[in-house]
Amino acid sequence: MESAVRPAPRPLQVPSTTGLVRQGEREPKWLVQAEKPVHYEVRMANDLLDPSRSDLAEAGVTKSTDNRRFVVIDARVEAHYGHRLRAYMKAHRLEPWFCTLAVEERSKTLDSVTQVVKELDKFGISRRHDPIIAIGGGVLLDIVGFAASLYRRSTPYVRVPTTLIGIVDAGVGVKTGVNFESHKNRLGTYFAPTLALLDKTFLGTLEERHVCNGLAEILKIALIKDEKLFKLLEAHGTELVESRLQSASVCGDAGQEVLERAIHGMLQELQPNLWEHELQRLVDYGHTFSPSIEMLALPDLLHGEAVNVDMALTTVIAHGRGLVTDEDRSRIGRVMHRLCLPHYHPVCDATSLVTALEDTVRHRDGYQRLPLPVGIGDARFVNDVTPEEIAHAVDTLAARGLDAG
Amino acid sequence: MESAVRPAPRPLQVPSTTGLVRQGEREPKWLVQAEKPVHYEVRMANDLLDPSRSDLAEAGVTKSTDNRRFVVIDARVEAHYGHRLRAYMKAHRLEPWFCTLAVEERSKTLDSVTQVVKELDKFGISRRHDPIIAIGGGVLLDIVGFAASLYRRSTPYVRVPTTLIGIVDAGVGVKTGVNFESHKNRLGTYFAPTLALLDKTFLGTLEERHVCNGLAEILKIALIKDEKLFKLLEAHGTELVESRLQSASVCGDAGQEVLERAIHGMLQELQPNLWEHELQRLVDYGHTFSPSIEMLALPDLLHGEAVNVDMALTTVIAHGRGLVTDEDRSRIGRVMHRLCLPHYHPVCDATSLVTALEDTVRHRDGYQRLPLPVGIGDARFVNDVTPEEIAHAVDTLAARGLDAG
Repeated sequence: MESAVRPAPRPLQVPSTTGLVRQGEREPKWLVQAEKPVHYEVRMANDLLDPSRSDLAEAGVTKSTDNRRFVVIDARVEAHYGHRLRAYMKAHRLEPWFCTLAVEERSKTLDSVTQVVKELDKFGISRRHDPIIAIGGGVLLDIVGFAASLYRRSTPYVRVPTTLIGIVDAGVGVKTGVNFESHKNRLGTYFAPTLALLDKTFLGTLEERHVCNGLAEILKIALIKDEKLFKLLEAHGTELVESRLQSASVCGDAGQEVLERAIHGMLQELQPNLWEHELQRLVDYGHTFSPSIEMLALPDLLHGEAVNVDMALTTVIAHGRGLVTDEDRSRIGRVMHRLCLPHYHPVCDATSLVTALEDTVRHRDGYQRLPLPVGIGDARFVNDVTPEEIAHAVDTLAARGLDAG
Repeated sequence: MESAVRPAPRPLQVPSTTGLVRQGEREPKWLVQAEKPVHYEVRMANDLLDPSRSDLAEAGVTKSTDNRRFVVIDARVEAHYGHRLRAYMKAHRLEPWFCTLAVEERSKTLDSVTQVVKELDKFGISRRHDPIIAIGGGVLLDIVGFAASLYRRSTPYVRVPTTLIGIVDAGVGVKTGVNFESHKNRLGTYFAPTLALLDKTFLGTLEERHVCNGLAEILKIALIKDEKLFKLLEAHGTELVESRLQSASVCGDAGQEVLERAIHGMLQELQPNLWEHELQRLVDYGHTFSPSIEMLALPDLLHGEAVNVDMALTTVIAHGRGLVTDEDRSRIGRVMHRLCLPHYHPVCDATSLVTALEDTVRHRDGYQRLPLPVGIGDARFVNDVTPEEIAHAVDTLAARGLDAG
């Protein structure tokens, strides 16, 4: 009987196409499959604004690029380097259009993105061949990368980080984004730059606190996967801060080695997981509680400082589980101290940290997937951190920091 | 001498990683390469809200999905189908959270996106396993898809188009977006849904004008690549409008065949070019002048109506170049008339159309890449349409439409 009520197959003939699969007769369905190739270069290129260097002039250039350049630059960077940048552009016969942004964590919003979009409209950028060049810290790079990814659904851009956190973190990956209400990076995209140009000479004019801010992300890489890097920070921490990782420092090439190891370690983790299909990420170390800590404490803590508070907290938790020895806990505490990084902030109470973990669990799709250090240079993921452990850790930190004594 | 000033290669040893290439000694660079796999299903599934069907209940579900569902629904669709949808959810023991949006082209803005984002925050959606279900027309699907792509840098979503233009166009591709100031879809992303469920019974309550709006995109596919589809529109145009493409119509299964051919033709064009690496796109036919026409005429013209004005204009241009015969030009005009689609709007003057073409040239990275029909069912790209041709075409259309006589 059932066959009697089914309509006869219709004579409809639809041509098949490679890659597009059509199935079913009465209620057809199509399976669309494709792979998007992504590639980009991260290049160390010191003293970028030396007119004899062509990296910046050629960045993002295609066959049909003309001499116009759309440059978004941080207001503080512009104050320090605007003159040299203009001279550089002139020496290369380029016509830059400057969009100067005064940004900080609190202005990392959709409004800042639309500000860039309006300028792109005024400039009349072409869809593929006028490069957008972003020069500034992590916040600026995240905003401009976001705007570039949305503008005409993707417009190529080049990242030139000018802060240490930009050079070792925001500048080398593919994430863009802004905060939304009280949520850190709630909105964003994965959008690779064409090129990231890393020039550590920019650090020469960076405030010391911002150097330390970047060192927190370097310490993160050290703690979870690179004991050698940790030892470099242990041996040269103070000098690295004072010299701002410049070559002519008393610690010789330690600055360069620290940078290279940190960037390489970061890219090793990012490259196989660019779109975060795997939510268990080593580089999320220090980023479990810190998104909430940073937003709650605004404008008190810089990103790296909040990350460090998180690392201090999770070091105590790891110590409580026997994953970190007394001695290593103290060593970690001493390095944090040398890098002038805070291990505590008053917004950290057990209640808000438990709430922070709940939001992170949603962000990690239902599991804590919380990386804890194992000794120094190794890590393990756990899913069973309890509110009691958190409360105990925060009380310990508030009382006596990382001194395990 | 030069070798004397170069520092000796340092003994730095960085481990290599598959996929990450490190080159250079003094100024290292890294090449990051990856491929992002994308796949999604487009499924015809009529009478979705029949509780005996499980498509919608299972849409976007993963192993860890719970019973909660985040549903964004158009206010008009809610008025017609809200009762059945609630009964459906209840029958499947699901707990829906409804976010009802009253949207139209003028509210296709970032503000509407943030409205959805706020609701997602309130709902507390998980990153990967709570599906976002979008039920509505093209504008709603574009807004919700955009919000989903940005929320935590990508949250899965399911598209359920309820208009004809949604079923044959906005609902089956990967584009999302909103208008920005006077620019159509200036901001957006490429973000594939997990699944698109196409249910033509929704068309039963669609205003006739919106049926015609969708038929314009179907006519586009017919004109550039499917003569058979054109003949179906020619033979059944009036009945298709009146029956709203439902099966029990006087034209038998023509409605179903028209839908399948249009969707298949569209997907054939989209699938190999999901991210528009190739800017010479057949499906851009009718989309050269229409983005500006639509925005200038707001709220006068629906999207498909503006597309039709563009197709009328470019048919006259193609006719002027000998690509379309007198007879075919008249046939095209008659089909447009049968589908109640306008061939002209007063905002179309030569100056604004030339400006529109200039913006499109930027969108197509410096070239017109303008598809013109060749006869019926074929097309050719040109880059040399002149302001004179445009002025002549618009004068002709204003005076006597597509009647070639």
